[in-house]
Amino acid sequence: VPKVAVAAAEDKHVLLALKSAWIKKIAMPVLIGNKDAIEEIADSINFDLDGLEVINEKSPEKSCKIAVEWVSNKNAGILMKGLVSTAALLRAVLNKENGLKRKTTLSHFALFEIPTYHKLLGITDAAMNIAPDLNEKISIINNAVGAARGVGINSPKVAIVCPVEVVNPKIESTVHASIMTTMNRRGQIKNCMIDGPLALDIAISKKAALHKGIENEVAGDADILMTPDLNSGNILYKSLAFLGGGKSAAIITGSSAPIVLTSRSDTEETKLYSIALAASIISNNNNK
Amino acid sequence: VPKVAVAAAEDKHVLLALKSAWIKKIAMPVLIGNKDAIEEIADSINFDLDGLEVINEKSPEKSCKIAVEWVSNKNAGILMKGLVSTAALLRAVLNKENGLKRKTTLSHFALFEIPTYHKLLGITDAAMNIAPDLNEKISIINNAVGAARGVGINSPKVAIVCPVEVVNPKIESTVHASIMTTMNRRGQIKNCMIDGPLALDIAISKKAALHKGIENEVAGDADILMTPDLNSGNILYKSLAFLGGGKSAAIITGSSAPIVLTSRSDTEETKLYSIALAASIISNNNNK
Repeated sequence: VPKVAVAAAEDKHVLLALKSAWIKKIAMPVLIGNKDAIEEIADSINFDLDGLEVINEKSPEKSCKIAVEWVSNKNAGILMKGLVSTAALLRAVLNKENGLKRKTTLSHFALFEIPTYHKLLGITDAAMNIAPDLNEKISIINNAVGAARGVGINSPKVAIVCPVEVVNPKIESTVHASIMTTMNRRGQIKNCMIDGPLALDIAISKKAALHKGIENEVAGDADILMTPDLNSGNILYKSLAFLGGGKSAAIITGSSAPIVLTSRSDTEETKLYSIALAASIISNNNNK
Repeated sequence: VPKVAVAAAEDKHVLLALKSAWIKKIAMPVLIGNKDAIEEIADSINFDLDGLEVINEKSPEKSCKIAVEWVSNKNAGILMKGLVSTAALLRAVLNKENGLKRKTTLSHFALFEIPTYHKLLGITDAAMNIAPDLNEKISIINNAVGAARGVGINSPKVAIVCPVEVVNPKIESTVHASIMTTMNRRGQIKNCMIDGPLALDIAISKKAALHKGIENEVAGDADILMTPDLNSGNILYKSLAFLGGGKSAAIITGSSAPIVLTSRSDTEETKLYSIALAASIISNNNNK
């Protein structure tokens, strides 16, 4: 069972998700933060802390630093945010001296189960990169492909989502999409099948794709939707979560270990699924 | 019953929608195009053309010009696209000599009924403006507000959707949102209540809004969602239509008459609803 180092763990919703993850043997929590507060909350939700490490550190910033050290020293495989700002946790992650080793651009990867789609659907990037350039987009794809492979999708179909399915030089997203599609065909982006530009309907509906005369393995059957920027990625994520009836898990990828960075408004279910997604990715990586 | 002038009407799906609109007395079609083809298709779908004008014009371009003239001469109240490219129809609309009078920037307005939201939800702009600047965004809001008022929503609540609910100078959409919100409070954008920046969840869920401590009339109860650009607007539109189980109507607004510009992959239902939306808007305007 992988260990998850939790920074500023004194949060009821975070502890509820960790309790489920521990009972289900998905991950073993290492709780860093205000020990009194952690124990009090644990008691109130019947979370038995016997056999778990609880490290007392009242400062949220120092708590982030300690949690990151657990991961960089390989004593824990997953990093998770508790009652501390995302900015503070990322500062500790990105610290040059004792942060996590970054492989590439950090990016957000979400995995959805939606009643109206025939399989799991990955979305990237809904939360980290504001307006990624081409190189950053390639890193974002590689991160997402790594995450998808971590849950057993070995050659994920990646749709580069744009407002249209033709290249329009006035719409940069369509230009980027065509470049990345070619790079994939030439073996410059590996372990996946890329097609784009594809409008969202064409990416997820074979019928819509055939209407437009687009026939290939990705169109209508995407495993991952890559959006042009934060504006569009965040809207897609939230429309699926809040209007599409989707269940989701999400992590930050691109560093040496997955980071669970759920937000206060996420459900406990989402927090638990996110821990499970991170755990699945690292156990698959360890088996390779 | 308003008249709808249809350019290049020789299209089965368009004629099916027009047949329903005519039977339900929503709109009276004026069919411009290849008369033989129109009559043949009408026959095959049991669409009785008795009492309707059918104008023979085999060239799709000239057919657009004639349809636009019907509208600019006030002989028809709605313009509709048949078997002709959007570009060709818009060329005729925008023609300086005999096009339609433009009030402002043309923009796309869609109205959704979604099972997971408690009322109708307008989306703008999912199809026309690639990267609108601030002035264009103000026109887009005014167009959408006019359309919403045309279906009886007298002071629509407009959420300016962004990836976050705080102003981040690195994210232009949040800067634009704050400016438009202020302009609304100072009476510079009228007939609506604007709030932004709002992330999508906060715009449509009171619970999510309260979680983030945002309490106002718009948050969680938006009538109109204004998206930052085409990338994000198109993704939102298509995720609601294809993954959110939404029913929708859509028009182009900003010229002297509404334009029904549905695409081939739209359902007949969407085409009919779009005619009905246009008809409702002009009959409300005529009654003012």
